[in-house]
Amino acid sequence: MKNISILGSTGSIGVNALSVINNLDDKFNVKALSAYKNSSVLIEQAKIFNPEIVVIVDSSEVDFVKESLKKSGISVLCGREGLLELSARDDVDIMLNALVGSSGMEPTINAIRSSVNVALSNKESLVMAGDIIDYEKNKSGAEIFPVDSEHSAIWQCLVGEKIDDVEKIILTGSGGPFRTRDYNTFKDIKKEEALKHPNWSMGNKITIDSATMMNKGLEVIETKWLFGIDVNKIKIIIHPESIIHSMVEFKDKSVKAQLGVPDMKIPIQYALTYPDRCFGEWESLDLLKLGSINFESPDINKFPCIALAYEALKKEGTMPAVLNVANEQAVYRFLNKEIGFMDIPYIIEKACEKHDWVSNPSLDDLLYLETWTTNYVKQFVSKNS
Amino acid sequence: MKNISILGSTGSIGVNALSVINNLDDKFNVKALSAYKNSSVLIEQAKIFNPEIVVIVDSSEVDFVKESLKKSGISVLCGREGLLELSARDDVDIMLNALVGSSGMEPTINAIRSSVNVALSNKESLVMAGDIIDYEKNKSGAEIFPVDSEHSAIWQCLVGEKIDDVEKIILTGSGGPFRTRDYNTFKDIKKEEALKHPNWSMGNKITIDSATMMNKGLEVIETKWLFGIDVNKIKIIIHPESIIHSMVEFKDKSVKAQLGVPDMKIPIQYALTYPDRCFGEWESLDLLKLGSINFESPDINKFPCIALAYEALKKEGTMPAVLNVANEQAVYRFLNKEIGFMDIPYIIEKACEKHDWVSNPSLDDLLYLETWTTNYVKQFVSKNS
Repeated sequence: MKNISILGSTGSIGVNALSVINNLDDKFNVKALSAYKNSSVLIEQAKIFNPEIVVIVDSSEVDFVKESLKKSGISVLCGREGLLELSARDDVDIMLNALVGSSGMEPTINAIRSSVNVALSNKESLVMAGDIIDYEKNKSGAEIFPVDSEHSAIWQCLVGEKIDDVEKIILTGSGGPFRTRDYNTFKDIKKEEALKHPNWSMGNKITIDSATMMNKGLEVIETKWLFGIDVNKIKIIIHPESIIHSMVEFKDKSVKAQLGVPDMKIPIQYALTYPDRCFGEWESLDLLKLGSINFESPDINKFPCIALAYEALKKEGTMPAVLNVANEQAVYRFLNKEIGFMDIPYIIEKACEKHDWVSNPSLDDLLYLETWTTNYVKQFVSKNS
Repeated sequence: MKNISILGSTGSIGVNALSVINNLDDKFNVKALSAYKNSSVLIEQAKIFNPEIVVIVDSSEVDFVKESLKKSGISVLCGREGLLELSARDDVDIMLNALVGSSGMEPTINAIRSSVNVALSNKESLVMAGDIIDYEKNKSGAEIFPVDSEHSAIWQCLVGEKIDDVEKIILTGSGGPFRTRDYNTFKDIKKEEALKHPNWSMGNKITIDSATMMNKGLEVIETKWLFGIDVNKIKIIIHPESIIHSMVEFKDKSVKAQLGVPDMKIPIQYALTYPDRCFGEWESLDLLKLGSINFESPDINKFPCIALAYEALKKEGTMPAVLNVANEQAVYRFLNKEIGFMDIPYIIEKACEKHDWVSNPSLDDLLYLETWTTNYVKQFVSKNS
């Protein structure tokens, strides 16, 4: 029986994780749940899974949560402090970090420092603080188990293999909803169009990241930190069907791939049950029904975010963190209809250029830059609107 | 440094293996080579790799080989006895069995009995004597490392995984040269047409087996014995590009695949260097150049050999051995232009029906049935010509 805490339990990954846990209820004890502001779903989840603690980050919801759970004996914490307190507890075996964006960084670091293994859906943790997390992992011995389908695929392909034998990691990407769209119309892309992902059903932020392909760029950076692999060995290939989730080429030119239906429950379950595999009640992959699968090059002109991410990773230091926060802030502005689709890469590039680069940032440096970048994007948008 | 013997060194697999060994010459010491009758190539190989022993099976060639190698200090054995003697030696770390057909069975058993690991290209060994080889493996602790690209793929996908977690093994097959040919013209198929494989360059026997798809049937039987997997979990899928060499589906519906260019040097090298991987100087897989890969169902009407193999495996006992010998003999008759293409499955079916089935055959039973089946096919052909 593994004790587990779930940060971001009301989001897409959190809900899928609880569905996985529900199917394997003799294997997991849910110790804690957290939500940003979706108090009604959090309360419902708490009544089903009976954790010791819940955290509601939005403090305006805390009274409602406390009132609803007062007979249950469940402790209710609130605010960012509550989340940080929860993530620092060492009484769980695994913490699923399914927070969205840079807010997930500190909780990941907290858990690793407390020797708690992290099932990581929050790729921004590694994008921003890969170096710090690496250091803390080595110190505490805690591990990170990837939840992203691409990184789960790579991880599965590497089981029983030696990392030194890896010649190339090939991240697959669907290409998003605008793969075949005429570049000249990219400036007119509407929020509603960008939110329609062809294969995956995900939260808003990651769906926009898929549309700009920054998601793939962030995954390149995450790959570097998860597997300790040189940036030059990480490639992207477009595979519109999202069936091959990623591939690893070894030095004997043998390639291993992990495939499956596009259902996040597979990588979530693998991260939670590793090193075991458990039955999955979902659909099998049917290659006959599919008939054929396709591959093409990513179009860097259409999707400049890919190049921005590679550059940031090569420049190291604070560059990936600023890239990530600028992207996050630009995406929120786009979702608020304050900026256009092609303003996203433009703003990211400017923020990366303008910030005071530091080679070996501390956590404080990163938190300072998070604020700086958020303000930079805010000013940029108000100046240009 | 691994000491290695190669049975069938002048055939397609043997020549590729020596090319692999030549590239990795600090890792292998070639102790012995054997050939059926290609004495000039055997002599050339012996001069380059300087083994302690060579075996020439065709005794009419032995004087020429002895004469050519007399100054080298290399011992020359001859005949079937020489081959059996060589395969029973325990002074090598690994024996590559690249013999063609049922003649490979006893050498495999000999090596396993002598606690020598076998890199097995001769799938007929396991098809005929899977049960006996399994018993001997458990007794001696020797292992079999598959060389067939499909089984190498499965083996690579299973590294670090548990066999009990396997839900399905999906053998891929190109479908051979007649995948899209009209079934009504199958009776007119000429030897020359059947020898044109679309993707792989192989020996004649296995090329005809690919054309009838008996090769895939034999591989199903081999899969059962190599991985101890139930026949109901072994599936065949047609994938004309021969890029995915096979796949494994686990119980969480995650699928792992091994891919690569269709070059036998990759699985040969893996079998010889396992558990290590070494650099391969050959071409990388280029999925972009390929663009797309396709999947379809095997057509059991066109290729009845597939169904015959599944049935033989389900009936167990001597059935797969008779299937294999009848196929081998029928293929030789087809290559001799004595029978038509569709006579191959017909003869196999009849031989399987007519033989005296034994549930737990001894090696003697199998050797007897080898002779019986050879004679049965001979009589069948002479009666019908």
